[in-house]
Amino acid sequence: CTAGYKEDPKGSLVIKCKAAVAWEPNKPLVIEEIEVAPPQANEVRIKIVATSVCHTDLYHLLESMHPDGFPTVLGHEAAGIVESVGPGVTEYQPGDKVIPLFIAQCRECRFCKDQRTNQCEQAWRATDRPGVMAPPETRLTCKGKTLLQFVGTSTFSEYTVVNAMAVAKIDPAAPLDKVFLIGCGVSTGYGAAVNTAKVEPGSTCAVFGMGGVGLAAVMGCKNAGAKRIIAVDINPDKFEKAKVFGATDFVNPKDHDKPISQVLAEMTSGGVDFSLECTGKVEVMRSALESCIPGWGVSVVVGWTDLHDISTRPGQLIAGRKWTGSAFGGFKGRDAVPGLVKAYLDKKVKLDEFITHKLTLEQVNDAIEMMKSGKCIRTVLNVSPE
Amino acid sequence: CTAGYKEDPKGSLVIKCKAAVAWEPNKPLVIEEIEVAPPQANEVRIKIVATSVCHTDLYHLLESMHPDGFPTVLGHEAAGIVESVGPGVTEYQPGDKVIPLFIAQCRECRFCKDQRTNQCEQAWRATDRPGVMAPPETRLTCKGKTLLQFVGTSTFSEYTVVNAMAVAKIDPAAPLDKVFLIGCGVSTGYGAAVNTAKVEPGSTCAVFGMGGVGLAAVMGCKNAGAKRIIAVDINPDKFEKAKVFGATDFVNPKDHDKPISQVLAEMTSGGVDFSLECTGKVEVMRSALESCIPGWGVSVVVGWTDLHDISTRPGQLIAGRKWTGSAFGGFKGRDAVPGLVKAYLDKKVKLDEFITHKLTLEQVNDAIEMMKSGKCIRTVLNVSPE
Repeated sequence: CTAGYKEDPKGSLVIKCKAAVAWEPNKPLVIEEIEVAPPQANEVRIKIVATSVCHTDLYHLLESMHPDGFPTVLGHEAAGIVESVGPGVTEYQPGDKVIPLFIAQCRECRFCKDQRTNQCEQAWRATDRPGVMAPPETRLTCKGKTLLQFVGTSTFSEYTVVNAMAVAKIDPAAPLDKVFLIGCGVSTGYGAAVNTAKVEPGSTCAVFGMGGVGLAAVMGCKNAGAKRIIAVDINPDKFEKAKVFGATDFVNPKDHDKPISQVLAEMTSGGVDFSLECTGKVEVMRSALESCIPGWGVSVVVGWTDLHDISTRPGQLIAGRKWTGSAFGGFKGRDAVPGLVKAYLDKKVKLDEFITHKLTLEQVNDAIEMMKSGKCIRTVLNVSPE
Repeated sequence: CTAGYKEDPKGSLVIKCKAAVAWEPNKPLVIEEIEVAPPQANEVRIKIVATSVCHTDLYHLLESMHPDGFPTVLGHEAAGIVESVGPGVTEYQPGDKVIPLFIAQCRECRFCKDQRTNQCEQAWRATDRPGVMAPPETRLTCKGKTLLQFVGTSTFSEYTVVNAMAVAKIDPAAPLDKVFLIGCGVSTGYGAAVNTAKVEPGSTCAVFGMGGVGLAAVMGCKNAGAKRIIAVDINPDKFEKAKVFGATDFVNPKDHDKPISQVLAEMTSGGVDFSLECTGKVEVMRSALESCIPGWGVSVVVGWTDLHDISTRPGQLIAGRKWTGSAFGGFKGRDAVPGLVKAYLDKKVKLDEFITHKLTLEQVNDAIEMMKSGKCIRTVLNVSPE
């Protein structure tokens, strides 16, 4: 760890450390020395041990490219150790192993008090700048400039500061270079199957997109007892890995002249019971819906995009299909993440199998290129030792 | 009744009677003498007592105008009396009061055997000619031409023949000039609220479109225990009637400069728990979805159109909204219609209040004009005496 401390004007300690800064859209990240201010009231400063590039980071950098969203420190799938806490924080203390949450759980708003959802009004408040997905507050600066904290986390940094309601404390036995995956991709896909779709034993499922989220969705379908899990991807290299997580059938849309919804309907006598869209592409979201059986088919939008509309004919819904979605797999982060970590330690949830490459924070641009090329599932970026 | 019998070539009796024939799209219906063949195996010939114009009839005549869908006899919301039955029919006999069903219930397919849906594979088989919504079989002829049976029913006729699996036998005490409403509009709207949306006690609902279907949806929300029911219509004349069925609030989109979803969100601190779209317009379907609260809001597409796509941003679903729909309110017709008739007789469901005008079959074009102008809710067409 290269981090050093210095006194800030108020008398607390500012940490100077390395971070990958996205100065502007569609450009490589730059490793810089940044300043991480001390945690303020109800905030926690975390030493990041392991993080990874998730599609939403790339989406912000390369697709949405909202000019108000830069400069920023990306990264939201991570695990680390509490370095210090601000006034009023009693739930965490230095040395705790934690996973930062890109959806807060305040436990006090009407959404947090409702079992049907993991939306939190506090989380919304932090992300209400359209297209930016960054909170109005940030504790990061570099060369005299304020760095936005992407979805309130910014884990492509040796240290970051997050709100205490956006932190999950986990088992001290957890290997952080594995459980960081629970910070986004694995929870998002797994929960979309078990919480949002509520996949039923004996059912037939289709998962579109065999990235980390899609593979986790396959695992969710499998753990929920699905009888048949059809993996759909235009990259056949992913199918071997899909099998590891429980996929039973493989469909490459490039092998077919007809719409993939028709291919799946023919394979399943009318359509699948559950479909999960894990690519973030609106045309795939449509295919996923229309691959469902009329009457009771449920399709879950898991991949994120806000650049285009999703569309279908009304008759697709009038025939009884349900179209829904979730963020972070519908998990209430502070409540659920410790249990997911335990499920990994108990070998009920796979994590190791997602990790195909290991790099360092300095190599983050290589990790981004590998993700763009589809050559990896997840590349762990080892930021600091545990 | 002007009907007369004549021997058909096979020795059974053909009925000659009056019907309103739609010879071509977008033209007034023509009252003609038609021939109604005897019921074949598993078919029932019905004397229609009362029927009404529903929006789907107008949609076929004036909007979709599929050239393969003419000539046809429209009409699907009706009640009548069994005149004769074909070989193999044991469930019905002449004199039974019945309601024809535009969605059959074969009771044998996997959909009929599943409690989650009222889709029936037999019904699909009968309507699999794209855009036509008429079965390949018909028992109606006029001037040597075959008349298609719109959605398998064709109730704008003194007599019609329907498949036995598309008939519901009802209480002999039921007044047919009231309970005909259960044949489509009332069941469609009422069931969308109680079966599809599964409106919960104490919830806040919005219903878009105060035609017959929308008013029935309001009644469904009310009977399900909704605390607040917001009626949305651009015709304020409908609001008085909406109140009769249980609406508590009224919103005319023309009174507002901002999107109606925003108006409703402000009225309800974030959105309604349930919304029901009863206009058949895709832009209203979008508004209805986006008027729902994130986290758990459910929007049901009830109005029918297949001319355009429905659209929304993926984030609307990722935030936890659910978009679904139903036909005939999700009711399995043969099982549920007798109970709906009983609910009317027991004064648990209103029907009389929907009927604003009374005309005869010969005046069907006047009824169509009144519906187009929004000057009526339902006009009963008295076809034959009971």
